[in-house]
Amino acid sequence: MRILIRGGTVVTATGAAAAAVLIDGETVAALLEPAHTGALAASADRIIDASGRYVLPGGVDVHTHLDMPWGDTFSADNFESGTRAAAWGGTTSIIDFAVQDKGGSLRQALDGWHAKADGKASIDYGFHMIISDVTGQSLREMDGLAGEGVTSFKLFMAYPGRLYSTDGEILLAMRRAAGNGAIVMMHAENGIAIDALIAQALAAGHTDPGWHGRTRPPELEGEATARAIQLARVAGAPLYIAHLSAREALAAVTRARDAGGDVFAETCPQYLYLSQDDLDAPGFEGAKYVCSPPPRPAEHRADLWRGLRTNDLSIVSTDHCPFCVKEKELGRGDFSKIPNGVPGIEHRIDLLHQGVADGKLSLARWVEVSSTTPARMFGLYPRKGTIAPGSDADIVIYDPSARHVLSARTHHMAVDYSAYEGLPVQGKVITVLSRGEILVEAGSWRGRAGHGRYLPRGECQYLT
Amino acid sequence: MRILIRGGTVVTATGAAAAAVLIDGETVAALLEPAHTGALAASADRIIDASGRYVLPGGVDVHTHLDMPWGDTFSADNFESGTRAAAWGGTTSIIDFAVQDKGGSLRQALDGWHAKADGKASIDYGFHMIISDVTGQSLREMDGLAGEGVTSFKLFMAYPGRLYSTDGEILLAMRRAAGNGAIVMMHAENGIAIDALIAQALAAGHTDPGWHGRTRPPELEGEATARAIQLARVAGAPLYIAHLSAREALAAVTRARDAGGDVFAETCPQYLYLSQDDLDAPGFEGAKYVCSPPPRPAEHRADLWRGLRTNDLSIVSTDHCPFCVKEKELGRGDFSKIPNGVPGIEHRIDLLHQGVADGKLSLARWVEVSSTTPARMFGLYPRKGTIAPGSDADIVIYDPSARHVLSARTHHMAVDYSAYEGLPVQGKVITVLSRGEILVEAGSWRGRAGHGRYLPRGECQYLT
Amino acid sequence: MRILIRGGTVVTATGAAAAAVLIDGETVAALLEPAHTGALAASADRIIDASGRYVLPGGVDVHTHLDMPWGDTFSADNFESGTRAAAWGGTTSIIDFAVQDKGGSLRQALDGWHAKADGKASIDYGFHMIISDVTGQSLREMDGLAGEGVTSFKLFMAYPGRLYSTDGEILLAMRRAAGNGAIVMMHAENGIAIDALIAQALAAGHTDPGWHGRTRPPELEGEATARAIQLARVAGAPLYIAHLSAREALAAVTRARDAGGDVFAETCPQYLYLSQDDLDAPGFEGAKYVCSPPPRPAEHRADLWRGLRTNDLSIVSTDHCPFCVKEKELGRGDFSKIPNGVPGIEHRIDLLHQGVADGKLSLARWVEVSSTTPARMFGLYPRKGTIAPGSDADIVIYDPSARHVLSARTHHMAVDYSAYEGLPVQGKVITVLSRGEILVEAGSWRGRAGHGRYLPRGECQYLT
Amino acid sequence: MRILIRGGTVVTATGAAAAAVLIDGETVAALLEPAHTGALAASADRIIDASGRYVLPGGVDVHTHLDMPWGDTFSADNFESGTRAAAWGGTTSIIDFAVQDKGGSLRQALDGWHAKADGKASIDYGFHMIISDVTGQSLREMDGLAGEGVTSFKLFMAYPGRLYSTDGEILLAMRRAAGNGAIVMMHAENGIAIDALIAQALAAGHTDPGWHGRTRPPELEGEATARAIQLARVAGAPLYIAHLSAREALAAVTRARDAGGDVFAETCPQYLYLSQDDLDAPGFEGAKYVCSPPPRPAEHRADLWRGLRTNDLSIVSTDHCPFCVKEKELGRGDFSKIPNGVPGIEHRIDLLHQGVADGKLSLARWVEVSSTTPARMFGLYPRKGTIAPGSDADIVIYDPSARHVLSARTHHMAVDYSAYEGLPVQGKVITVLSRGEILVEAGSWRGRAGHGRYLPRGECQYLT
Repeated sequence: MRILIRGGTVVTATGAAAAAVLIDGETVAALLEPAHTGALAASADRIIDASGRYVLPGGVDVHTHLDMPWGDTFSADNFESGTRAAAWGGTTSIIDFAVQDKGGSLRQALDGWHAKADGKASIDYGFHMIISDVTGQSLREMDGLAGEGVTSFKLFMAYPGRLYSTDGEILLAMRRAAGNGAIVMMHAENGIAIDALIAQALAAGHTDPGWHGRTRPPELEGEATARAIQLARVAGAPLYIAHLSAREALAAVTRARDAGGDVFAETCPQYLYLSQDDLDAPGFEGAKYVCSPPPRPAEHRADLWRGLRTNDLSIVSTDHCPFCVKEKELGRGDFSKIPNGVPGIEHRIDLLHQGVADGKLSLARWVEVSSTTPARMFGLYPRKGTIAPGSDADIVIYDPSARHVLSARTHHMAVDYSAYEGLPVQGKVITVLSRGEILVEAGSWRGRAGHGRYLPRGECQYLT
Repeated sequence: MRILIRGGTVVTATGAAAAAVLIDGETVAALLEPAHTGALAASADRIIDASGRYVLPGGVDVHTHLDMPWGDTFSADNFESGTRAAAWGGTTSIIDFAVQDKGGSLRQALDGWHAKADGKASIDYGFHMIISDVTGQSLREMDGLAGEGVTSFKLFMAYPGRLYSTDGEILLAMRRAAGNGAIVMMHAENGIAIDALIAQALAAGHTDPGWHGRTRPPELEGEATARAIQLARVAGAPLYIAHLSAREALAAVTRARDAGGDVFAETCPQYLYLSQDDLDAPGFEGAKYVCSPPPRPAEHRADLWRGLRTNDLSIVSTDHCPFCVKEKELGRGDFSKIPNGVPGIEHRIDLLHQGVADGKLSLARWVEVSSTTPARMFGLYPRKGTIAPGSDADIVIYDPSARHVLSARTHHMAVDYSAYEGLPVQGKVITVLSRGEILVEAGSWRGRAGHGRYLPRGECQYLT
Repeated sequence: MRILIRGGTVVTATGAAAAAVLIDGETVAALLEPAHTGALAASADRIIDASGRYVLPGGVDVHTHLDMPWGDTFSADNFESGTRAAAWGGTTSIIDFAVQDKGGSLRQALDGWHAKADGKASIDYGFHMIISDVTGQSLREMDGLAGEGVTSFKLFMAYPGRLYSTDGEILLAMRRAAGNGAIVMMHAENGIAIDALIAQALAAGHTDPGWHGRTRPPELEGEATARAIQLARVAGAPLYIAHLSAREALAAVTRARDAGGDVFAETCPQYLYLSQDDLDAPGFEGAKYVCSPPPRPAEHRADLWRGLRTNDLSIVSTDHCPFCVKEKELGRGDFSKIPNGVPGIEHRIDLLHQGVADGKLSLARWVEVSSTTPARMFGLYPRKGTIAPGSDADIVIYDPSARHVLSARTHHMAVDYSAYEGLPVQGKVITVLSRGEILVEAGSWRGRAGHGRYLPRGECQYLT
Repeated sequence: MRILIRGGTVVTATGAAAAAVLIDGETVAALLEPAHTGALAASADRIIDASGRYVLPGGVDVHTHLDMPWGDTFSADNFESGTRAAAWGGTTSIIDFAVQDKGGSLRQALDGWHAKADGKASIDYGFHMIISDVTGQSLREMDGLAGEGVTSFKLFMAYPGRLYSTDGEILLAMRRAAGNGAIVMMHAENGIAIDALIAQALAAGHTDPGWHGRTRPPELEGEATARAIQLARVAGAPLYIAHLSAREALAAVTRARDAGGDVFAETCPQYLYLSQDDLDAPGFEGAKYVCSPPPRPAEHRADLWRGLRTNDLSIVSTDHCPFCVKEKELGRGDFSKIPNGVPGIEHRIDLLHQGVADGKLSLARWVEVSSTTPARMFGLYPRKGTIAPGSDADIVIYDPSARHVLSARTHHMAVDYSAYEGLPVQGKVITVLSRGEILVEAGSWRGRAGHGRYLPRGECQYLT
């Protein structure tokens, strides 16, 4: 099957230009100057007209939690619904998190997540591994997993008793990663101090969702981020800060990067668009916005947008981890029991394009933070993250002028509310291809569960 | 004429991948996945085998001074010899500086430089305009020049009485640039204070070339850089710091960029490789390394390499401004009379690739700082700075393993010494094409004076 | 004449304690534990009861402009009215500025200012020297003046054509000061750039007093401050920043001090209490607040109070330079013609005590910034700036509970308006002694013109 | 008993001046101008001639560990020998640390330390309380202890399993302190990470004392310091960083102080004079220098001296905690078993005066960091820390010209080695008085065990 996409403007991380894209099977066969498409057009099985539209490399969302257990429940999207929603939103690769059980092996965890995804995913997927039990065995297993393409390991400075690792364990894991070419990702919040604040708040009768934010103050994310950076320096290891939300954390990352450190950070749409005000919504509404770190006081958002421009924030991922309203209800009367996470996998590309429309990001930077850098950071480039000969034909045709409104009534995620209900955005995904197969077209779903394949990954491409 | 370059690894600012490049006439017609070149190969007039080699977008050197008057003499390379040497070194576009005469018009200056280049250049060239006389007329002329593709204007905080502008004049020019879409480039050294130091040094009998460095201390570059940044903030204008050499200046740029300012900086190979020690060479040898700002104490160099990694230094240009030894002799007995400038137009790509070989830069970053970012910064992208359909077919085939030694005996610049005499480097330019014409091949010059054309430029592409 | 002050709380720069002070003639003979005053009380000619009150070292105001020429007029207070008002407000020493004429000698200037003060001043006074013409002669004269106790020289980066020095001249003067033990004080605003802004504003028809502030933006004070610091580094000289008003300038000072530099700064009450809003008062009212640097946007004030706490601002002086309303009228229709300066010599101690009452400064810090540090900074300690055996008996008895309202109707300065009209303050000067003579007592003036003497000064005591 | 000290130069935190000091009983009755001592001299029981000497407020050492248990042993000095040695060195007040037992109460700890000191000390002493077990009970006890004059509580981020508190416990204790007017002192090293490094080092066969330093890298002190600062911000509490040794920690303190935070820090002579090189001394010699934090690589020392000048380091204490060589031997073959601590209580004043002689500190600053600020910081001023009417007559007569050599052969501490063996210093204590009693005179000990009294303390005097 040969598909020719012509008439559009190909946008990459460095700029935009008119070009046609010839797909042969699963990969890009050629990029063509518009006047040179004639001969090839003849040989194409199908021609897609992208006039007036952008032709983008498919989005790469490096932070999702599909089918993830949380207490007795699971996040609302499994690999079928979640990857489908992703594709609707222009994302054609995800990296999800396999979670080691306390006492379990990394191998078991990885096998488990392969089973969750296999045959279900409609887009390609890789795995990071969450280490929740740093032991001699799990450290040794890191080497093997890196060899299988799991080249990133997430640790938690939050959630004592569950996912939390001590600073000593973190140091050991970082040193191991430094040795096997992997990178450590960090949930950087001081969970020990936070738990003390939570206990004090509950004891004082503060149970509303807004207290989720107040018991996780920005200083404790800034602190943990700075701590992770120093541990990485001691270990001689690179570091990736997940879901950075607070200006104090950004300041720590900026200082480290100015000094030339291999420190990278992502933020998420919820931190660019939501705030503590949403957590403080009347009644129990705020529960919808409960995630960790929490949306910050509104004045943090301008700092995050600035960080995206300065590249102190290199990536926007979603930390997609949706729970339906009835699950959120578990925390009524005790904010600390609200399942953590907001939906977002479908809206990342649009929410960032709104930043382009608002003059906050350039067109090239939009593609860079949502596709190219994620692919380079996590060892998928140039297979993913660009439109180039030989790359996977993961392509999004995007209408920069279309306007629509985000809403649970229209979204494709298996969660019964939207974190951005009623928000108008400019720009819309029109057509989506994954390895040459059309997933979305003309407002219809053409994809299929099982099309998606596991993506073994190489090393981070920002280390010299 | 259709040329197919195949077998090589195309390197761009985001990474490297195997691909073939089809050139049709002056531009790139297609990029092809290697297995898809068969049919096209048949139609090619010529096939170049790039096996084992990099295929790079031609280098873009945004800071050269060809045929430039200095007192009663001129820089040693005119547009014929200078652009030829550039091409030998893998640079296929330059932006040279037209210089307004005191009392003269910008128009006269631009016409004069067009005359210098026209029919002589073997590669494409654009012009920045040096404003040495900020008047109501020259401010008004800025708008017109911007419309002709001269979208950058250089001002000097150094050289009082010659090129120097006052802070008030700078502010006016910046405001004008902010209004017409141009960017101001700055020679940021405090020339007023420097002249006082020079007078003191000469009065104290210090006449050797080493005193060129000592009378232009790093603090006075740091100061001027910080001043230019504040003036730009007041003017609401972007700013480009030329030939940054001192860690103090880098610190000022870093602070401004961390704060989200539209402040950019370049450095030059002489600051990455030379130092005050060279200025202090025995006898009058140090004169060879006299340029402004001067090479700094050796410890500054690691900071500059770090700045290249962190993108606080976005570009490497050469500030190529060579004078033969007999011209340098004008300053024997008075270092302040030594013509300022070092040769470098031919060696930029190799000297930076040595940084790749040394693990200081990644492959993608090498292309980014020497080609892609210069083109984006000064409004030439995607015509220059990348290999993409529709781009000018300015292409360099580069052997990353070849080793050679820099020397005046072998270089192609019209200057009788090398600033890097005897320096071994890894990596070598093999073949060079400019708009589809072969300039360098098999160790021979195939180019011709007059092939090069004027490049009208658009706006800086880093402003949102 | 022996005077015993007893019953009060002696406050110094390190703290407060109950103690009696015995004065014998012009100096302090003893400090006594309260229970030990009995025998001495018998021998005292006079006993002053200070129960419930603070006993303070007399204030030292290191920045005044009495009888200062400005165009065709003079500042409203001469040495008689000005020093009397100072004493009413608890200040018993001032350092005024002698001003070199363009083309004149420092000697002439100093003689002229001696003549202005001699026989007029009711409190002791020293002189800084303003160098408005840096020449070989004036540089040489610096040494002699330092030997006569004029150990500080002020230069201007503002006011081109009048007081302005170039960066080269500044460097020469700093080097001279570094050699003769003096310190350079700087008016740090970029006057060259400001004049360009003023010309643009006037050309655009902006003539109101508010534009005085808008054409002297904080960035241009920050810039000049940073520049002065770098020049001082090059010169190897200490630096004192006069009348710091902008957070950008404070940031530059903070960076320099963090690095261990001998950089010091003062602010003034007008920057702690007034703002751009005052300049923007309706009609021509804003002219009353025109001084340079101008009062800044209100949010700068919290930074200045913080700087006072952190000691990045070491001193509060007044820059007292009052002009009556009719003089201010000279600038109606052209803000740039409004004589620069606000009255304040009388209110400094009270306005800072209000900071103590508001919890912004500690009691000890109040005395430190208004008396002790000024005396140490400018070589007057321990003669001035403390209450200690042998020190001049310059003593203020202060009621920390009394409340009054600042107003032109009640102040003693020879200016017909108050910059703080109607402002209620807590704390009031009750009794003032200068070298053992009572100047103010029971709401009456007991001092006399001619009591004040010239204070030759030693070196700055903060240099190690 | 009335003693008159005359002929000397009284040095305080703000400067020096000739003055006589009259002592009546335990306190200072008067400070007298030299010419006014005649009458009083007649009434004095004793006159001490201090000609050519400094008269100083007695030193205040706020960090000592006398009679402190460490495993099965105790620090070598008890309150008798330790306070005697302190007095020999010019220190007349100490604040020692009572240590809560795990499971024990603060009350028991305080009672225990009172018993250790009572009847033994020859100089006055206060207590900080080390909380090693943060429980509801110990938090409640904090209030009571603060009321008894124990207004400072030390917590440990190091020594897991022994003195370590979690970040949650720290937060609780800080909040309690914020409520009762006390201040939290912090041992800021990341003990959790350090223990991991120690385990790795020992596993790798690294057992020498030098590895004590290498397993406690400066980054982990910098990290913990920054963490403590953020926890204090969250708690709204002031913070005192004990024994700061690393430039990374100093940078964190500097940032916090620049922002106006109530963050204070001390350093110790061992960090100003020793280095990792001492830990790496041949054989087991390095054990003598084992303390925590460890002496740092030599280049950190200049930063610490600079911090003393900039007041980012406000105090120099000793952390005196000596162990004899045979105790140090416990760690032969396992550096982690070497008892931590170096002797220093006797040499602090001399080692800092050497800094004065070397031009690193001013005379006034010497007194400030060793006496006045410690007294103000911990609520002892003006009883201690100055020479003023009503203050305790704790006075040191000091010869600034005398030279001597530090050595275990001559020191008075009950430890069989000196950390500064053979170091020549300029300046020597001649006479020492504590509350009017002579302790040291003419090279002889005149003091007595039991003269020293408990010092209940007030609040920190730097909080506004």
